[in-house]
Amino acid sequence: MKNEKIPYKIYLSENEMPKAWYNLRADMKDKPAPLLNPGTHEPMTAEELEGVFCSELVKQELDNDTPYIEIPEAIREFYKMYRPSPLVRAYCLEEKLQTPAKIYYKFEGNNTSGSHKLNSAIAQAYYAKQQGLKGVTTETGAGQWGTALSMACSYFDLDCKVYMVKCSYEQKPFRREVMRTYGASVTPSPSMETEVGKKILAEHPGTTGSLGCAISEAVEKAVTNEGYRYVLGSVLNQVLLHQSIIGLETKAALDKYGIKPDIIVGSAGGGSNLGGLIAPFMGQKLRNEADYRIIAVEPASCPSFTRGVYAYDFCDTGMVCPLAKMYTLGSDFIPSANHAGGLRYHGMSSILSKLYDDGFMEATSVKQTEVFDAA
Amino acid sequence: MKNEKIPYKIYLSENEMPKAWYNLRADMKDKPAPLLNPGTHEPMTAEELEGVFCSELVKQELDNDTPYIEIPEAIREFYKMYRPSPLVRAYCLEEKLQTPAKIYYKFEGNNTSGSHKLNSAIAQAYYAKQQGLKGVTTETGAGQWGTALSMACSYFDLDCKVYMVKCSYEQKPFRREVMRTYGASVTPSPSMETEVGKKILAEHPGTTGSLGCAISEAVEKAVTNEGYRYVLGSVLNQVLLHQSIIGLETKAALDKYGIKPDIIVGSAGGGSNLGGLIAPFMGQKLRNEADYRIIAVEPASCPSFTRGVYAYDFCDTGMVCPLAKMYTLGSDFIPSANHAGGLRYHGMSSILSKLYDDGFMEATSVKQTEVFDAA
Repeated sequence: MKNEKIPYKIYLSENEMPKAWYNLRADMKDKPAPLLNPGTHEPMTAEELEGVFCSELVKQELDNDTPYIEIPEAIREFYKMYRPSPLVRAYCLEEKLQTPAKIYYKFEGNNTSGSHKLNSAIAQAYYAKQQGLKGVTTETGAGQWGTALSMACSYFDLDCKVYMVKCSYEQKPFRREVMRTYGASVTPSPSMETEVGKKILAEHPGTTGSLGCAISEAVEKAVTNEGYRYVLGSVLNQVLLHQSIIGLETKAALDKYGIKPDIIVGSAGGGSNLGGLIAPFMGQKLRNEADYRIIAVEPASCPSFTRGVYAYDFCDTGMVCPLAKMYTLGSDFIPSANHAGGLRYHGMSSILSKLYDDGFMEATSVKQTEVFDAA
Repeated sequence: MKNEKIPYKIYLSENEMPKAWYNLRADMKDKPAPLLNPGTHEPMTAEELEGVFCSELVKQELDNDTPYIEIPEAIREFYKMYRPSPLVRAYCLEEKLQTPAKIYYKFEGNNTSGSHKLNSAIAQAYYAKQQGLKGVTTETGAGQWGTALSMACSYFDLDCKVYMVKCSYEQKPFRREVMRTYGASVTPSPSMETEVGKKILAEHPGTTGSLGCAISEAVEKAVTNEGYRYVLGSVLNQVLLHQSIIGLETKAALDKYGIKPDIIVGSAGGGSNLGGLIAPFMGQKLRNEADYRIIAVEPASCPSFTRGVYAYDFCDTGMVCPLAKMYTLGSDFIPSANHAGGLRYHGMSSILSKLYDDGFMEATSVKQTEVFDAA
């Protein structure tokens, strides 16, 4: 089965690592819909967003035009602790499946935080530090984003307050403790620490929580604490920008061996992983330079693409965040308390939602139990 | 701080991976003491050992002369799923410590089982399969060896029975479940499943167990079940042989960049990691081709080298195994139920014990709590 020319793992060298992130929006003829002010229903201005987000990240959030944005030197040095990540040829899986398909996967688990979330966490922590902030607040579901952000904040000596969806807080005690080991505070959400948490608990006593609830709490904590901003691990345009490094490296590795993929598949929660992986390939497709089938795979228990509606909705349950136009199950959606905690966000990246609506990609949903059985 | 010539991570290519394991014993003028039959106190013969171990592994266990033993093709192909592993330059740690030292570490965690144990597990499972066995039995402490062996057995479709030290079985439920996911059976040790387990429980009701107890149970299970053999993740000569791939890759990576280490440090439980890492360097030292300081670091709660005696002792608590000459705390040693479950074996590899006794290496011990505080 083994093709002698292609190794099991393609590693780029550290100086082949991309020096700029790729901003997919620059190649979209029809741009994703802007965030709206929940009061006025007008597009959010930079000034309005800067109350919640770091200034440099607001710029990136609103920039629909610049195709490449340089990765600051300090972030590139940090990336070198674990990047470029390998593109793995799954020879053994191919043999087990007896498939003619050639299967490659980009392995992002090879860093201390354990996931791709670190790519954006370190960038967001860097810009927070540059701005002279004391710390950041955030939410986490399964705990991957919270872990990555805790690690990044520890590196830049920033305080980090994490609201963790209650059911994951209880199901995943080690994740919680890893964050605390990095010095973060971790609060199960909804909590009595915030006004919005109290309100949600009053309306839904005993709820196991959701990412939408945890976001509301984290945003409230950021805007009511001097020197803090809120950061998010998925959904936002800036996150997909940072995560484009996954796709850029994947494309560079494939190009190096002259491999042209037919189908690109990624799991989709809020879109950080999928949006990062497909970015340069989707760019080629939008520029009519190449064609690929691009498929989002989402959990059947939280099927934003496949069963949601494409509409303006709140990003959070407490309705304190801007409105985003996206495929959504409704901001009051409380998912079943299953194990795939990170894939339970009610909405989906505006960029990916627009591309899906315009027919540039497909989506399918799978059940957790069927996935476990197949493995 | 960053030296432009040396990357953060040195990756060898897959065809630079060693094609043979290195047998350190071939370069030892004074050989490690042989295993003794517990009844006759005569050296164990191959025939006697073959009741417990796979035949090819018995050959490797007793071979004090062949310097290089070819790695079978099937094992090399498996290794390529995760090897060569990176040699990492710890630039960030150096900066935090403000040290003039140049620190490199060999990272063996980058495989699905999570540790270096897979290097020997896949070899032992391979030889068991070649011999036409139904399955193997083993013990595990922290669970790394058990996880690796479960994965290897699953790959070759072998049954796998794991006896897990009771305190780890309770402290590390996820480890336990990973093994079961790979299809292994996992029993907390001491158990009522074996005669030796019942005896230990009768004498020490409520014991949290030890590797010595778990080995006794696993050996009993192997010799009383047709088509089974016992396999071990550390201590034995054959394990150090397989783990030499760690040291061989480390040396190849250093040589590639013209780096000559001054000090080589490894953690020591039974000796699998340390013995593998130092093998080719110790070989140079024994052949007077180079000199290095070689330091074993062991847990203060189980200080075989630093507080044990060098003597013939049983490898297991139930005294069913052969006697090995090694630094030992006594085969009835029950360690405190702390978290470093894999570093609590009462004895130490005969090879490393001999080299330490002959003055070729140093040893020191550290306390778990001090290590956590320092981090």
